[in-house]
Amino acid sequence: MIDITLPDGSVRSYDEGISPMAVAKDISEGFARNVISARFNDETIETSTPLTTSGALVLYTWKNPEGKKAFWHSSSHVLAQAIEELYPNAKLSIGPAIENGFYYDVDFGEDSLSEKDFKSIETKMLEIARGKHDFKMRALSKADALSLYKSQDNTYKVELIENLEDGTITFCDHSTFTDLCRGGHIPNTGIIKAIKILSVAGAYWRGDENNKQLTRVYGISFPKQKELTEYLELLEEAKKRDHRKLGKELELFTFSQKVGQGLPLWLPKGAALRERLENFLKSAQKKAGYEMVITPHIGQKELYVTSGHYAKYGEDSFQPIHTPNEGEEFLLKPMNCPHHCEIYNAKPFSYKELPKRYAEFGTVYRYEQSGELHGLTRVRGFTQDDAHIFCTPDQLDKEFKDVIDLVLYVFGSLGFENFRAQVSLRDPDTPEKYIGNVENWEKAEQAIINAAKDKGLDYVIETGEAAFYGPKLDFMVKDALGRNWQLGTIQVDYNLPERFDLTYKGSDNELHRPVMIHRAPFGSMERFIAILLEHTGGNFPLWLMPNQVIILSISEKYEKYAEKVLNLLENHEIRALADNRNETIGRKIRDAEMNKIPYMLIVGENEEQDNKITIRQHGGEDLGMISVEAFSIIVDNEIKRTLKTFK
Amino acid sequence: MIDITLPDGSVRSYDEGISPMAVAKDISEGFARNVISARFNDETIETSTPLTTSGALVLYTWKNPEGKKAFWHSSSHVLAQAIEELYPNAKLSIGPAIENGFYYDVDFGEDSLSEKDFKSIETKMLEIARGKHDFKMRALSKADALSLYKSQDNTYKVELIENLEDGTITFCDHSTFTDLCRGGHIPNTGIIKAIKILSVAGAYWRGDENNKQLTRVYGISFPKQKELTEYLELLEEAKKRDHRKLGKELELFTFSQKVGQGLPLWLPKGAALRERLENFLKSAQKKAGYEMVITPHIGQKELYVTSGHYAKYGEDSFQPIHTPNEGEEFLLKPMNCPHHCEIYNAKPFSYKELPKRYAEFGTVYRYEQSGELHGLTRVRGFTQDDAHIFCTPDQLDKEFKDVIDLVLYVFGSLGFENFRAQVSLRDPDTPEKYIGNVENWEKAEQAIINAAKDKGLDYVIETGEAAFYGPKLDFMVKDALGRNWQLGTIQVDYNLPERFDLTYKGSDNELHRPVMIHRAPFGSMERFIAILLEHTGGNFPLWLMPNQVIILSISEKYEKYAEKVLNLLENHEIRALADNRNETIGRKIRDAEMNKIPYMLIVGENEEQDNKITIRQHGGEDLGMISVEAFSIIVDNEIKRTLKTFK
Repeated sequence: MIDITLPDGSVRSYDEGISPMAVAKDISEGFARNVISARFNDETIETSTPLTTSGALVLYTWKNPEGKKAFWHSSSHVLAQAIEELYPNAKLSIGPAIENGFYYDVDFGEDSLSEKDFKSIETKMLEIARGKHDFKMRALSKADALSLYKSQDNTYKVELIENLEDGTITFCDHSTFTDLCRGGHIPNTGIIKAIKILSVAGAYWRGDENNKQLTRVYGISFPKQKELTEYLELLEEAKKRDHRKLGKELELFTFSQKVGQGLPLWLPKGAALRERLENFLKSAQKKAGYEMVITPHIGQKELYVTSGHYAKYGEDSFQPIHTPNEGEEFLLKPMNCPHHCEIYNAKPFSYKELPKRYAEFGTVYRYEQSGELHGLTRVRGFTQDDAHIFCTPDQLDKEFKDVIDLVLYVFGSLGFENFRAQVSLRDPDTPEKYIGNVENWEKAEQAIINAAKDKGLDYVIETGEAAFYGPKLDFMVKDALGRNWQLGTIQVDYNLPERFDLTYKGSDNELHRPVMIHRAPFGSMERFIAILLEHTGGNFPLWLMPNQVIILSISEKYEKYAEKVLNLLENHEIRALADNRNETIGRKIRDAEMNKIPYMLIVGENEEQDNKITIRQHGGEDLGMISVEAFSIIVDNEIKRTLKTFK
Repeated sequence: MIDITLPDGSVRSYDEGISPMAVAKDISEGFARNVISARFNDETIETSTPLTTSGALVLYTWKNPEGKKAFWHSSSHVLAQAIEELYPNAKLSIGPAIENGFYYDVDFGEDSLSEKDFKSIETKMLEIARGKHDFKMRALSKADALSLYKSQDNTYKVELIENLEDGTITFCDHSTFTDLCRGGHIPNTGIIKAIKILSVAGAYWRGDENNKQLTRVYGISFPKQKELTEYLELLEEAKKRDHRKLGKELELFTFSQKVGQGLPLWLPKGAALRERLENFLKSAQKKAGYEMVITPHIGQKELYVTSGHYAKYGEDSFQPIHTPNEGEEFLLKPMNCPHHCEIYNAKPFSYKELPKRYAEFGTVYRYEQSGELHGLTRVRGFTQDDAHIFCTPDQLDKEFKDVIDLVLYVFGSLGFENFRAQVSLRDPDTPEKYIGNVENWEKAEQAIINAAKDKGLDYVIETGEAAFYGPKLDFMVKDALGRNWQLGTIQVDYNLPERFDLTYKGSDNELHRPVMIHRAPFGSMERFIAILLEHTGGNFPLWLMPNQVIILSISEKYEKYAEKVLNLLENHEIRALADNRNETIGRKIRDAEMNKIPYMLIVGENEEQDNKITIRQHGGEDLGMISVEAFSIIVDNEIKRTLKTFK
């Protein structure tokens, strides 16, 4: 008999050799019907693998990420079989599950694959899936494995096997198909009910551009047709909301080949949007006792040698800037903290004057390979909504909690309702990866956990995810399409105060070391605006919209009245513009819709006569004919609803 | 007979050999008494030099810069004689007039000079001056000149003479003293009535640090004792107003050795001051139709090759930034214009959409030798209140005039009442110094002159002072101490639009080249704030003051009432703070005076009882006991008086 421990802590005894699926059935037949993958003693196994020792068993369904992984890994076997049957000369290489779906890298030889071939692959895969073929693992000797693929003239699989040790080589069979495989499958192909081949792309064998380019076939599969339909709709919506597309359509930002990749140029509407976001945070920060500072975008190399950034990042970064003089070296600043430490060091502080909270919208530069760049989410220059709090150890807990309040205020005002926090601690097994002593790390980690608990955050602890200079609390936000983004970070730092020899005079008249908190609720303005664009599809909260209102005159006759309305709106501090082009009202509405302007005010004969305006909301809702006064109250109320006052 | 043409265009005939002084006397005896220097056919001569040909004569008095130069040059001869008499072993080298006064570089051998010796030099100089010795030029052969100084063992003069051509060597005699000299003296020493030796400093012979270090003796002299007294008072006042001193006292900015020389760090009060100035200009710019943009602080080298900046400044600047990748090179931006050109190029424009006015508080970096750096007026990184206007040639005149209106609004709001403009044109004799074609230059130059005339500016035209890319209009402001500063610049540019291939579609449906205007009313935020500090001594206009009001509680008992007043002031948007320290009211007033806070509100028993405050203005004026409401009206009125609304 063996003892099987389940995730809820319960222990069940079974005969040796029982399978995970049999355990599942013993728990509940209904549950077992959903089980598609298993882990035993932290190793992924098949649901049919006999259990021969006592141990901990976890059973997964489609709802678990591990279940999805097994589902998509198994689907890639089905894809491979379909390709083998449809393209007998194709040579398979590798085909893993990925975050959304799976792919297989294939050498199609003389053949090539295009979108028009996707349908026949999908049909063939569904035909195989319907056969309800079991996935079955078997071991093979290295010699047999090699001879199998050599006989097929498949140099890719031969190369993979040559790097494996004899005795560890396994294959997976299903239907008439077999593939070199480490395991981790769903029970049978019948569970795969919906399949979509998404795209093809070129991919060098083993990612090395000196090797042959293979064809990477991307696909996704689901246990229900409805889920596939929903996924494809989401994909379509995400394309529409792509911040690079919206940024261009709404004229927010651009890139220039001459200025350089990854260096955004903010166009007038984008710069105004950014300024509004900055002013929103500035105003809250002022109430929270922050003081703005301004520091240069470069610093002497010595500054970063002192901070430790040079040793850590120097080689992979923008390289030092020399001058016509010998021996001078400057670096583009990758972080604002060293500069803020030097501001703290500009005069001596007493404990009575702490905390000092220095804030700066500081633009930093970090080198990224051009292949890694992506719109505003991965750039080479970006502006952090940065601040550094210098406080006594006694003040740390309160300061940390106050920062959380500020972050929650920011998220609330911008419509991010769905988020959780991640507490990143050091990996205690690799102390060499971190700067600073263990005692300080423990103090800081405890302060973060206390604050997260106290503020009732939904948080997880991730060991080994801390920055090299301190532990941190990151906020993960779920956007309207259900995608997760890392936003906002708060980090405790006991290290830079040491390196910059920061001090304050305590009540004992002795010099002490302050604690430092780094924090950025937005993270970076560029990345935040990208995420906000994708979250809202460009329909920002009203208080943030570049243009809140557009006045559409029905014909040239009403241009004067339109200008009068525009003036009235400006007096109410509503950001409006007038469309007096010689176009039909239908065309003007379509353009305003495309520009995502929240309110269209239509003015024609009736409106001018009654000194009113007809209101149409973005999306089509008609609010009728009212006065500018009444409309301004609607706007005010909508702004008050979303943009609350901080504290 | 020869014909002498005077500056007013009148021509007088005299016998050949008449002296400038005799001409002066012929004009008027009273005028002649003030004449101290002369120029004939654009060459400086003595007032006693016989005129032997017809030509143009200019006679100078102390009021002219040329008169002052002759005065101080002559004074340095008197200084040299005094030193020779007091220090017989001293060896003279060179001694020119400078902007304010004169100096002489002397090798004192075993002796040294310190402040305690100044008095005796001044006394000796005045004694010589009172002798009313004429300055008389005479020619000497090179051999005689060399033998004179060789006999004195003066290697400096010998070296100077060795580099001169025989036949061009002249000496000046007065009293018992003679010196190698090119000429340009006042008639006699008696005109020098007041003398002050100001300082001594080390100076390498010929400015080469491999040479011997000499002692540079600085002095200044005047025709009236009163003028010296005033000058010394001004010097004292300038020291007090030195922006580096005030910047430290008022905690506006600091420098860090680690961050690097010439890279200011703005402390909270300074950053707030800067933001207020920026918001002031932003608000006016918005009304004037400008749009803010944001661009990165680096650009690919190619960008500056395109703009021409690399060819012009590359070698003397911060050097290119390399990356871990081959072939990538970036530069710190020395100017914002190339980035703004790329923003203009981001989409096609029709003539109906012009002008586009892109504004940015853009921080730029330019390398300066460390010896050239000075506080905030000469730095390596600074923020321009930059904007670039892209318009059609037809719009240029109006745009240029509108920019002048904006500049005058800025000066008016900041208390610079006293300014003149300088129109800088190209030197038509050296076309190789400028980029762009002659026709375009002429058009641009005419547009500037038209605008300056039309706006009634007090302007001068300086030929050869244009930037390499276009002509410009600079504003020279006179500060409260009478010193001139260059502030605010407007430049027309036909060149960058060519280089960046900027276009717009005209009414003829063809592509045309826009004209570009560069402009910066402040110039740079750093330099402007430095000048404003020295102009106002830190007593900024009330709307700009970091703290407008400080509440001084007479004792701890009134702390609560002080807080209540503070809240009331905040409701009136008056920037106030409370001094509730356990200090005497006298001490609190002294500290508030030192911090230059415009209004002190004293609160004690009477004030609390009557729910009022006692107002004391910075500088001491007592405004009596009034209500917070009444005080807020005083503040509002004072702000409205200085900070007018733009347009």
